[in-house]
Amino acid sequence: MKESVTQFKLDSRLQNDSFLVGNFRLSQLRLLNDKNFLWVILVPRIAGVTEFVQLSTADQLQLLNESGAVSRLLLDYFPTDKLNTAAIGNIVSQLHVHHIARRHDDPCWPGVVWGYGKGVSYEEDEKNALINTLQNELKNESGFEPAPSIE
Amino acid sequence: MKESVTQFKLDSRLQNDSFLVGNFRLSQLRLLNDKNFLWVILVPRIAGVTEFVQLSTADQLQLLNESGAVSRLLLDYFPTDKLNTAAIGNIVSQLHVHHIARRHDDPCWPGVVWGYGKGVSYEEDEKNALINTLQNELKNESGFEPAPSIE
Repeated sequence: MKESVTQFKLDSRLQNDSFLVGNFRLSQLRLLNDKNFLWVILVPRIAGVTEFVQLSTADQLQLLNESGAVSRLLLDYFPTDKLNTAAIGNIVSQLHVHHIARRHDDPCWPGVVWGYGKGVSYEEDEKNALINTLQNELKNESGFEPAPSIE
Repeated sequence: MKESVTQFKLDSRLQNDSFLVGNFRLSQLRLLNDKNFLWVILVPRIAGVTEFVQLSTADQLQLLNESGAVSRLLLDYFPTDKLNTAAIGNIVSQLHVHHIARRHDDPCWPGVVWGYGKGVSYEEDEKNALINTLQNELKNESGFEPAPSIE
């Protein structure tokens, strides 16, 4: 295993604000704890990376594949009117790629979710059900391993 | 030329809010007319596409290359503290990928630029100089053709 992978440590703010859904070959898939939106992030398990272009070409392509799998899931399985994808990192610089299933009736449409500032936590059973659904729908994606237990 | 390329028409709001810098093989590169930020967009010249995953695999890889060229330019040539990249499209659904060179001293750091709402237009000479710089720095990128005249 590459040293940069073994040294990877998830930023504590990402840890606190989201739940592990599972791991692709490169990235953690995490559900943001805000039931206003179906909002997940991919976090490549590589230490010290803040920009997409800092990834190796192979890792860029792998992240593209993982992002594609997540994007298709949100677009095809959930009632998504528009997908929002972004790598911002102004506050948490550790590279993480947002995927948000936006709906015309969500609380801040057509504004962006960042800065909306009125997050609503999931109830335990809602969160578990949603994570189970995400895991089930991704189970046939190459290299996806669901989290062994829900945090 | 593919029918979807010949049928491409730039959304009028993107046209009005930005200047053509040049064309990569797939995408227009355009400079947003807001001198608060160095903010460019890539617009694939394919009709009817609103989501990245709707592009063919070849076009996804091409857009990844073009985004990489733009990202490296912003990170390496300009005083960029953090790159923000995003495909949002809640208002203009035509696929366009934002690349914004964020600085710790810019007007809305660490907030996002969308919704900031206080755009400041470039003076003609500033805009021309910046477009010339962008064109010059990209001239060795494979497939990049600078706009024949500045709009």
